[in-house]
Amino acid sequence: MKIICSRSDLQKSINIVMKAIPSKTTMSILQNIMIDASKGVIHFIANDMELGIETVVEGRIDEKGKVALDAKLFSDIVRKLPDSEVIITVDNNYLTEIRCEKSKFKIPGLSGEDFPYLPYVEKDHSIAISQFTLKEVIRQTAISIAQNENNKMMSGELFEIIDNSLRVVSLDGHRISIRRIELRESYEHKKVIVPGKTLMEISKILSGEVEDDVVLYFTKNHILFEFDQTIAVSRLIEGEYFNVDKMVSNDYNTKVTINKQEFISCIDRATLFVKEGDKKPVILGADDTLLTLKIASDIGSMDEQIMIEKEGKDILIGFNPRFLLDALRVIDDEEVELYMVNSKAPCIIRDEASTYTYLILPINFNQ
Amino acid sequence: MKIICSRSDLQKSINIVMKAIPSKTTMSILQNIMIDASKGVIHFIANDMELGIETVVEGRIDEKGKVALDAKLFSDIVRKLPDSEVIITVDNNYLTEIRCEKSKFKIPGLSGEDFPYLPYVEKDHSIAISQFTLKEVIRQTAISIAQNENNKMMSGELFEIIDNSLRVVSLDGHRISIRRIELRESYEHKKVIVPGKTLMEISKILSGEVEDDVVLYFTKNHILFEFDQTIAVSRLIEGEYFNVDKMVSNDYNTKVTINKQEFISCIDRATLFVKEGDKKPVILGADDTLLTLKIASDIGSMDEQIMIEKEGKDILIGFNPRFLLDALRVIDDEEVELYMVNSKAPCIIRDEASTYTYLILPINFNQ
Repeated sequence: MKIICSRSDLQKSINIVMKAIPSKTTMSILQNIMIDASKGVIHFIANDMELGIETVVEGRIDEKGKVALDAKLFSDIVRKLPDSEVIITVDNNYLTEIRCEKSKFKIPGLSGEDFPYLPYVEKDHSIAISQFTLKEVIRQTAISIAQNENNKMMSGELFEIIDNSLRVVSLDGHRISIRRIELRESYEHKKVIVPGKTLMEISKILSGEVEDDVVLYFTKNHILFEFDQTIAVSRLIEGEYFNVDKMVSNDYNTKVTINKQEFISCIDRATLFVKEGDKKPVILGADDTLLTLKIASDIGSMDEQIMIEKEGKDILIGFNPRFLLDALRVIDDEEVELYMVNSKAPCIIRDEASTYTYLILPINFNQ
Repeated sequence: MKIICSRSDLQKSINIVMKAIPSKTTMSILQNIMIDASKGVIHFIANDMELGIETVVEGRIDEKGKVALDAKLFSDIVRKLPDSEVIITVDNNYLTEIRCEKSKFKIPGLSGEDFPYLPYVEKDHSIAISQFTLKEVIRQTAISIAQNENNKMMSGELFEIIDNSLRVVSLDGHRISIRRIELRESYEHKKVIVPGKTLMEISKILSGEVEDDVVLYFTKNHILFEFDQTIAVSRLIEGEYFNVDKMVSNDYNTKVTINKQEFISCIDRATLFVKEGDKKPVILGADDTLLTLKIASDIGSMDEQIMIEKEGKDILIGFNPRFLLDALRVIDDEEVELYMVNSKAPCIIRDEASTYTYLILPINFNQ
């Protein structure tokens, strides 16, 4: 094999496929980037067996062939090369020479015969959205993806298509995040659970531009993302997702309207009194015009007031300040509305049109 | 005690004294910032028993007094406050209230009666240099301060004043860094060893401006740095420093002149083939016009050529690439000169006027 690419094109493509290189694995072949120049186009491929990414690399093929190279070493070498033309040649033993200006590297390669190529995905059911929108919706819902995998379903996100809307949901044991996006056209009903890790990695390589589209294809077991010169295929999580509609109620006794930034700053200060792993709640007390925020621990105490508008009953309710912060920080509105029933029932933060809904369970406290 | 300061002034002064808060200590009082408003001026003081820092805080004293506050908590609270006026009041039990706009914090304080104030330093012998120069010379010599404290003297730097020049030297077992700075006037001979940690912390709080001065005072056991509204006092390391003049020779058989940036990039690429903790040398071979750089390990191999000018004999010599990089990165010149005797003797990188001298020991290798 002999290919010639610019350093910057190599770097760009490596950065994309690196997202599917596992940080640790028992299958050492997975720690390689497969360079496939056996047909007319250069492809880089990586696959951690849950997520696989394949991208087209700009460049010239002087001699067709393939090789699998240690991803970290290959990436490090390319990163440190001067911004110039790079010539990669592979001999019959897969010894790979990387040349750039007066630098010459030799590293061992592998045939890659046992490298797992991406699974074939039937391109039947697709939806198209802007890369910006997908990147945003992942950021705005990832907060409540469960970090431990005790419950597999909680480690993923529900992607549900109903007519012309896409609903994305994540939930751990303490909170639910729901975002609803309007699509450009109507599609038949689809409901899949995408692994959280897949979404985090995909969102890192999306351009984030409104003009650039990403097309999503669904099959029974896989989701495929197609964008720019890249396709990414991920396994889906099997099972029937939680019935979140039953968990989120529209009833409330108290509605508080508050300036989001003030609220964030105030809760952020309160977190100083919560030690790592501690369950100390911040206590919110709403009367007609003021929200009083209090926290006290053995480190010290804080109280603070914020001007609010309130409908309905006064309330005193405790929350994990981290959960409030996580939700508020992914909401773009200047003012937010909190809907509460009583001090034992979940608080819901949502906008009028329900484009977003964040549910947070309260914490008991001793008055 | 009651004092009123702007948040930004508090923050600035906290950042300065934090440099003398030990990361761990058995004397818990040292983890506090001493606020002393017992006289007409507000002082913040911290002292880790090697380095002590005292700085003046802009603000108003409504009621004189003192208190010692947990440095981390106090710093975290102030950082998260809105940019506004901050009122700090302390009651008879040293319970401290911090108020800012509608936020009110209460944290326990200490009398600070066992707080170690800065030692008294006789201001006899002083030299004045710009903060820029001191900051630079620390950066340019810190590379060879020994990281482990097996040899106490190697963990410090020699500051030696000879007439109108300041010589700063550090050395570990493998290399020596020497910088010579011309002073504005002549001083009597002084020779002290300053702890490396002191210098690193001081350099972080120096403004780095050419126009701002720092005055250094020396006594038998201490060095005092006076700048802006701050004084920092550090213990000195006792003992007679190494005789570096005997270690650095001006004889050479080979002199190589090379573009510094090309040399750095090339060595940097070579480091890819050195595993952490490995002693694999990069091998330099100089003939009349080219320097060939080679490295080979079980990861792979690299070779590269750089155009040079050479005087004297051809040479083949091995180095720890990290040591070469460290020295080259703190040299500002575009071209550097390497002076070598043979493959067993140290290489010296220095300029014509000897404002800098970096000595690096070679590593044996099998040809």
